[in-house]
Amino acid sequence: MACKAQTVLFKEYVEVGEVPPDNFQLRTIDLPALKDGEVLLELQYLSVDPYMRGRMRNAAGYFVGPFVPGEALSGGGVVVVKESKAPGIEKGKFYSGMVPWTSPQIATKAQMEQMQPVDTDILKLAKLPLSGYAGVFGLTGMTAYASLTRIGKPKKGETVFVSGAAGAVGMIVGQMCKNVYGCKVVGSAGSEDKVEFLTKELGFDAAWNYKTMPTLDALNKFCPEGIDMYYENVGGEQLEAALEKCRENARIVCCGMISQYNKKGDDRYGVKNLANVVFKKIKMEGFLLFQFLPEVVPEFFEHFPKWIAEGKIKDTEYVVKGGLANAGQAFCDMMAGKNKGKAVVKCVDKDPIVGN
Amino acid sequence: MACKAQTVLFKEYVEVGEVPPDNFQLRTIDLPALKDGEVLLELQYLSVDPYMRGRMRNAAGYFVGPFVPGEALSGGGVVVVKESKAPGIEKGKFYSGMVPWTSPQIATKAQMEQMQPVDTDILKLAKLPLSGYAGVFGLTGMTAYASLTRIGKPKKGETVFVSGAAGAVGMIVGQMCKNVYGCKVVGSAGSEDKVEFLTKELGFDAAWNYKTMPTLDALNKFCPEGIDMYYENVGGEQLEAALEKCRENARIVCCGMISQYNKKGDDRYGVKNLANVVFKKIKMEGFLLFQFLPEVVPEFFEHFPKWIAEGKIKDTEYVVKGGLANAGQAFCDMMAGKNKGKAVVKCVDKDPIVGN
Repeated sequence: MACKAQTVLFKEYVEVGEVPPDNFQLRTIDLPALKDGEVLLELQYLSVDPYMRGRMRNAAGYFVGPFVPGEALSGGGVVVVKESKAPGIEKGKFYSGMVPWTSPQIATKAQMEQMQPVDTDILKLAKLPLSGYAGVFGLTGMTAYASLTRIGKPKKGETVFVSGAAGAVGMIVGQMCKNVYGCKVVGSAGSEDKVEFLTKELGFDAAWNYKTMPTLDALNKFCPEGIDMYYENVGGEQLEAALEKCRENARIVCCGMISQYNKKGDDRYGVKNLANVVFKKIKMEGFLLFQFLPEVVPEFFEHFPKWIAEGKIKDTEYVVKGGLANAGQAFCDMMAGKNKGKAVVKCVDKDPIVGN
Repeated sequence: MACKAQTVLFKEYVEVGEVPPDNFQLRTIDLPALKDGEVLLELQYLSVDPYMRGRMRNAAGYFVGPFVPGEALSGGGVVVVKESKAPGIEKGKFYSGMVPWTSPQIATKAQMEQMQPVDTDILKLAKLPLSGYAGVFGLTGMTAYASLTRIGKPKKGETVFVSGAAGAVGMIVGQMCKNVYGCKVVGSAGSEDKVEFLTKELGFDAAWNYKTMPTLDALNKFCPEGIDMYYENVGGEQLEAALEKCRENARIVCCGMISQYNKKGDDRYGVKNLANVVFKKIKMEGFLLFQFLPEVVPEFFEHFPKWIAEGKIKDTEYVVKGGLANAGQAFCDMMAGKNKGKAVVKCVDKDPIVGN
């Protein structure tokens, strides 16, 4: 039987500056009847992430392709199967992966095979809500895990600087480096509250507010010995300072450069000390989680639930309620740094795992 | 018996700007008598290279350490054994490696073990003078070989951009990419004469004069399909343009950034598009030949003589006569881009292999 669905359409490209909340347009649409081999999914949680800003620019060749004006946005999320005409996919099961901002939505069996079945036992073991699969057990956690194990390769006793450390990926990276690898870990964030969160709650060795303390001053103060790895989420002045303090053979893991995403042309920050890449034999590498999939998945699920259960990695979420109606605003707030921890949009009234 | 020697002393650090020729001071010194276990060496050729500019700045932690004011400079070179009190090291044999700018000079057996014995048969096979060991068969050739095989890994059919392409390393890299790996190769240089040399003599698919053609215009014209590898010798505007034209998974092999070596602070070029490293999954890596030694040496000597004999790699030298007295000026000329090909200083009247 056909039904109505809610969807959020991408209005238009925004080349420069902040994307306004009204660039996300909530609409009601008609869904066709479910065909054989299809399933009907309902959104439970959506993930809003900085990389999505790049998809809001009309940049040919951008890594996952730009959004299409007038069509639904998409991103990481968790869904439940409401109805199934696809053999092997059971009603009531949860899945996580890349999904359109539409609920309910129809997916084919082939699309479902690209998604990760949610293991509710893992969530219970880790005492996490279902939203864990939109963050620490989803693309966010895998991004941290894959980039550290494949690119950064931190070693015991090394000094690691994480920018955007109170953000979704930064928070996990910092804790992994500290509690799994045994590194000294310092981080930058955009408020005093986040700085306290990093040092008091997550165990960072030091943290600072980049809005009031220049990064180079902070690194000179907290890492006089230099840094062995820089986990890059911010770019610009923080990258320049990191290059200055890198030791020989340092690695720069380029996960994101959020400070540059709203800028264009001369407005962007010019990094002047790249000769350090030569002088110090620095390896600087960008990546996309998908290049490490699917091989990273089983490994990730072998380690992460244990690390969470052992308290080595604490999950912190910034939950925006109200589902699709508030998803655009949630993205804008995340870009403005309002989130502490992983920003997720809650599309259900009560979490089906923890019940609140 | 004690003897006199000529040496070139490093006068003082030059933090910014061109190093003046009078910063290299020719002096006559007394050498002590040769002791057991020592050899007396005479310089045959010296290599002058851009990386030496970095050693002329008082930069703690610089990769091979700064020169010491009042002490002799050092660099790549070829020597002959004039006298030996070290078992196993024969008078009349040639060696290449890192040597002080002093002739004659005393070396210990341990120091000799860090050097490469010259295989004169290889030179004859390749029809090269002894200076080949200060260039194509020395640190220069090994730098090109090691960085391409370990970092750049060019693949058949890829498009490669080499900056400073008429320089010592660039010239070899371009020919290797073109004639060994089967890539499309384009390059920048600093004069019309060098551009002609690259396309007419070395077989580059395209080349341009960066002084009259902005790099981005050149890349748009000659590589509309984008580039898969950028071999970086220059930095600044050329790096920025390369980042713009990089395709997904491109590699940037950072051998040098000569455009930035004479500059400091705000005078340096600010690269504004580093977010491409994230978007395009770019790997950018600095290196120092020594990190690949000694493992790369046998491999290198297995391939290079053959490639030269087959005409896949042509050697071109910019030879400055007059030995140590002209070595400082030779460095300055090389930094100003006067050389086409490898800049070497000839310290003998006649080359002992080819006789002229």
